[in-house]
Amino acid sequence: MIKVSLPDGSIKEFEKGTTPMDVANSISSGLARNVISAKFNNNIVEVSTPLTTDGSLTLFTWKDDDGKKAFWHSTSHVMAQAIEEMYPGSKLTIGPAIENGFYYDVDFGEHKISENDFKKIEDRMLEIAREKHDFKLREVSKADALSYYKEQNNQFKVELIENLEDGEITFCDHDNFTDLCRGGHIPNTGFIKAVKLMSVAGAYWRGDENNPQLTRVYGISFPKQKELKEYLELLEEAKKRDHRKLGKELELFTFSQKVGQGLPLWLPKGAALRERLEDFLKKAQKKAGYEMVVSPHIGQKELYVTSGHYAKYGEDSFQPIHTPNEGEEFLLKPMNCPHHCEIYNASSWSYRDLPKRFAEFGTVYRYEQSGELHGLTRVRGFTQDDAHIFCTPDQLDEEFKKVIDLTLYVFDSLGFENFTAQVSLRDPENKEKYIGSDDVWEKAETAIINAAKEKGLNYVVETGEAAFYGPKLDFMVKDALGRSWQLGTIQVDYNLPERFELTYKGSDNETHRPVMIHRAPFGSMERFIAILLEHTAGNFPLWLMPEQAMVLSISEKYEKYAQKVLTLLENNEIRALADNRNETIGKKIREAEMNKFPYMLIIGEQEEQDGTVSVRKRGEGDIGTMPVEDFAAIINNEIKKTLKTFEV
Amino acid sequence: MIKVSLPDGSIKEFEKGTTPMDVANSISSGLARNVISAKFNNNIVEVSTPLTTDGSLTLFTWKDDDGKKAFWHSTSHVMAQAIEEMYPGSKLTIGPAIENGFYYDVDFGEHKISENDFKKIEDRMLEIAREKHDFKLREVSKADALSYYKEQNNQFKVELIENLEDGEITFCDHDNFTDLCRGGHIPNTGFIKAVKLMSVAGAYWRGDENNPQLTRVYGISFPKQKELKEYLELLEEAKKRDHRKLGKELELFTFSQKVGQGLPLWLPKGAALRERLEDFLKKAQKKAGYEMVVSPHIGQKELYVTSGHYAKYGEDSFQPIHTPNEGEEFLLKPMNCPHHCEIYNASSWSYRDLPKRFAEFGTVYRYEQSGELHGLTRVRGFTQDDAHIFCTPDQLDEEFKKVIDLTLYVFDSLGFENFTAQVSLRDPENKEKYIGSDDVWEKAETAIINAAKEKGLNYVVETGEAAFYGPKLDFMVKDALGRSWQLGTIQVDYNLPERFELTYKGSDNETHRPVMIHRAPFGSMERFIAILLEHTAGNFPLWLMPEQAMVLSISEKYEKYAQKVLTLLENNEIRALADNRNETIGKKIREAEMNKFPYMLIIGEQEEQDGTVSVRKRGEGDIGTMPVEDFAAIINNEIKKTLKTFEV
Repeated sequence: MIKVSLPDGSIKEFEKGTTPMDVANSISSGLARNVISAKFNNNIVEVSTPLTTDGSLTLFTWKDDDGKKAFWHSTSHVMAQAIEEMYPGSKLTIGPAIENGFYYDVDFGEHKISENDFKKIEDRMLEIAREKHDFKLREVSKADALSYYKEQNNQFKVELIENLEDGEITFCDHDNFTDLCRGGHIPNTGFIKAVKLMSVAGAYWRGDENNPQLTRVYGISFPKQKELKEYLELLEEAKKRDHRKLGKELELFTFSQKVGQGLPLWLPKGAALRERLEDFLKKAQKKAGYEMVVSPHIGQKELYVTSGHYAKYGEDSFQPIHTPNEGEEFLLKPMNCPHHCEIYNASSWSYRDLPKRFAEFGTVYRYEQSGELHGLTRVRGFTQDDAHIFCTPDQLDEEFKKVIDLTLYVFDSLGFENFTAQVSLRDPENKEKYIGSDDVWEKAETAIINAAKEKGLNYVVETGEAAFYGPKLDFMVKDALGRSWQLGTIQVDYNLPERFELTYKGSDNETHRPVMIHRAPFGSMERFIAILLEHTAGNFPLWLMPEQAMVLSISEKYEKYAQKVLTLLENNEIRALADNRNETIGKKIREAEMNKFPYMLIIGEQEEQDGTVSVRKRGEGDIGTMPVEDFAAIINNEIKKTLKTFEV
Repeated sequence: MIKVSLPDGSIKEFEKGTTPMDVANSISSGLARNVISAKFNNNIVEVSTPLTTDGSLTLFTWKDDDGKKAFWHSTSHVMAQAIEEMYPGSKLTIGPAIENGFYYDVDFGEHKISENDFKKIEDRMLEIAREKHDFKLREVSKADALSYYKEQNNQFKVELIENLEDGEITFCDHDNFTDLCRGGHIPNTGFIKAVKLMSVAGAYWRGDENNPQLTRVYGISFPKQKELKEYLELLEEAKKRDHRKLGKELELFTFSQKVGQGLPLWLPKGAALRERLEDFLKKAQKKAGYEMVVSPHIGQKELYVTSGHYAKYGEDSFQPIHTPNEGEEFLLKPMNCPHHCEIYNASSWSYRDLPKRFAEFGTVYRYEQSGELHGLTRVRGFTQDDAHIFCTPDQLDEEFKKVIDLTLYVFDSLGFENFTAQVSLRDPENKEKYIGSDDVWEKAETAIINAAKEKGLNYVVETGEAAFYGPKLDFMVKDALGRSWQLGTIQVDYNLPERFELTYKGSDNETHRPVMIHRAPFGSMERFIAILLEHTAGNFPLWLMPEQAMVLSISEKYEKYAQKVLTLLENNEIRALADNRNETIGKKIREAEMNKFPYMLIIGEQEEQDGTVSVRKRGEGDIGTMPVEDFAAIINNEIKKTLKTFEV
């Protein structure tokens, strides 16, 4: 008999050789129908793998990330089978699951493949799927494995096998197809009900451009046809909402070949958007007792040697800046914390002065390979809405809760309603990996969990996921397309106070070390604006819109009245533009809608006479004719609903 | 006969051999009494130098910079004479006039000199002065000059003479003292009525640390005792107002050895001050039609090769930043203009879109030797209140005037009442040194001069002082101590539009080059704040003060009422703090005055009962007891007087 512990904490006894599927069946037949993969003692196993020791078991269905991974990896076997049949002589290399679907890198030899071939490959894959072939993992000796692929002249698999240890090599069979494979499959091909090949691309063997070029075929699959349909619709919508596309259309930012890749240039409308976001946060932070500071974008190498950043990132990042003489070395700052520590160190503090909360919209620079860059989400220079709180250990609890309040206020004001939190604790089995004594860790971890509980967060605890310098809480936000983004991190830090020898004088008149909290509700202005653009498709909350209304005059005759309306709007703190071009009102409305103006104010003879505007709301249409002041009241009420005042 | 043209444009005939003093006498005996130096055909001459050719002559009195220079340089001869007499065997080297006074580098040999010796040297100098010895310049042959100093074993003067051409060497005699000297003296020692030696310092011969060390004796002199007294008082006041001292006392900024020299860290109060200044300018700029942009702090080397900055500054500034791979090279940006040109180039423009006015508080980095660094006035990283206006040549006139308006608004709001302007034009004799055609230069120069005239500026025109890329206008501001600072530059640029191939489509449907204007009313935030600190001694205009009032409670009992007063003040947009410490009210007032709080609001039992505050104005004392709202009205009225709304 073996003891199997399950995620709910229960421990059950089974006969040695029991499979995960057996365990699922022992729980419920419903679960057994849905279980497609499993993890035993932290190793991915097949649901048919016999369990021979005590251990902990997790069962995965399609709903789990690990379940999807097995699903997609298995589908890549099916695609490989279809390709081998349809393109004889093709050589398979590797075919992993990825974030959305899978790919297989194939040497097609004399064959060529294009999107036109997708349909027939998909059809054959679905045929194989319908035949419900079991995936069967079997051990092979290194010699047998090598001779199998040498016969096929597949130098790629041979190279892979040569790097493996004998006794660790497995093949996976289904139908008449065999592949070198470590495991992690669904029970049989029958689960695959919908398949879509997405694209082909060139890829070098092992990512090295000196190696032969292969063809990478991307695909995705689902257990239901409906899910594929939804996924494709989502993709279509995501394409429309791509922040790079919207950023261009809304004239928010641009990139210049000469300035350099990954270094955004913010155009006037984008710069104004950033400033509104910054002002919004500044206002809340002021209420919450933060103080703004300003620090330079470079620091001596020694600063980062002290902080430990140089040892960790130095070689992989932007290289040191030398001076023409005096032999000095500076680095572009990758983080603001060392500078804020030096600001803390510029004065001496008593426990009565703490907490000190230093905030800065600090622009930092981190090298990324050009291939990794992506719009505003992966850049080489970005502005963090950074702050560092220096407090006594006793204040940590309270400060942590305050930071959660501020972060939730930010999410609420910007329309992110769907989020979860992850609390990352240290691994109690490997305490030596972490800096700081047991009791400060316990205190801090308890503080974070209590704060998360008290604030009613939907959170998970991940043991062993803490940074070496302290535990943390991360917010994961779901956008309107259901995609998850990590936004807003709150980290406790015992390391930098040590390294920078930060002190305060306690009530006992002795010198103590403060604790630091790093936090950034937006994360970075660039990435946050990208996510906000994709979440809202450019229809930002009204308070944040570059322009809240567009005055559309029926003809050029009303330009003067349009100007009067603009002035009235400005007096009511409403941002607006006027379109007095000699175009049809229909065309003007269409363009204003396309350019995301939330309100359109149409003016003609009647409106000028009555001193009114005819109001159209984007996506809703006409909402009536009214004096400008009434419109201002509507808009300002709408704003008050999303943008509440931050209360400490 | 020779023709002498004078600065007023008149041309007079004199006999050949006439001296500048003769010319002065021919104008008025008052002038002749005051003239102390002269310039003939751009060469400094003695007032006793016979004029032998036609030419233009300028006569200098003590009021002129060149007059002061001759005065101080002559005094250094007198000091040298005194030193030679009192410290036999001392070797003289060089003794020039400097910005404030003069120095002489002396090898004192076996002697030592300290501040204790100043009095007796000054006394001897005044004795020599009273004897009214004429300064007489005479030509000497190189051989005679060398043998004169070889006899004295003065290897320094020998070295100087060896580097001169025979026929160009002059000695200057007065009393029994002789010195190697190029000229530029006052008529006689009698003009010197007041002398003060300031300090001694070590200095290497020719500034090279491999050479012998000399002793540099600094001094200053005046034609009236009263002027010396005023100068010393000014120095004393300047020391009190030193922005480095005030910056520390007012907790505005700090420097950190670890972050690096010349890289200021702005503490909360300083960061808030910067932000208020930025907000003030942003508001005016918005009215003036500027649009904010944001650009990164680095750019590819290629960007600065294109702009020409790399060729000009590259080797002497911060060196390129390399990437770990991909072989890219970036530079810290020394200027924002290349980035703004690329922002301009991100869109295509029609003449109807212009002018575009891109503004940014852009932080730039320029290497300075550590010995050159000084507080906030000479730093390695600073934030420019930068903007670039892209306009058609026809708009230049109007745009230039608008920039002058904005600059004058800035000076007015910040209490700089005393300023002049300098218009720098190209040298019409060396047109090939400048980029751009004759007609655009003429147009631009006329535009600037007209603008300066029309705006009623007190300006001088300096021919040949334009940058190679365009003419400019600089503002020189006098601070409260009478010191001049260059603030606010407006430059026309034809070069960058060429280099970045900027274009717009004209009304003729053809492609044209826009003109650029660079402008920065503050110059840099760092330097401006330094000057403002020294100008105001930290008593900023009320609207700019970190805190406008301090609530002082008679005892801790009134803490609650103090809080209520603070809230009322905040509601009236007045920045205030409360001092509820258990200290005497006298001590609290003294500290608040020292910390520059413009108003102190004293509260005790009576005030709490009546809901009032007893108001004390800094430097004026009690101004009465009143409700908080009345105080708010006083303060807000005072603000309105300095901080007017900018009107376009």
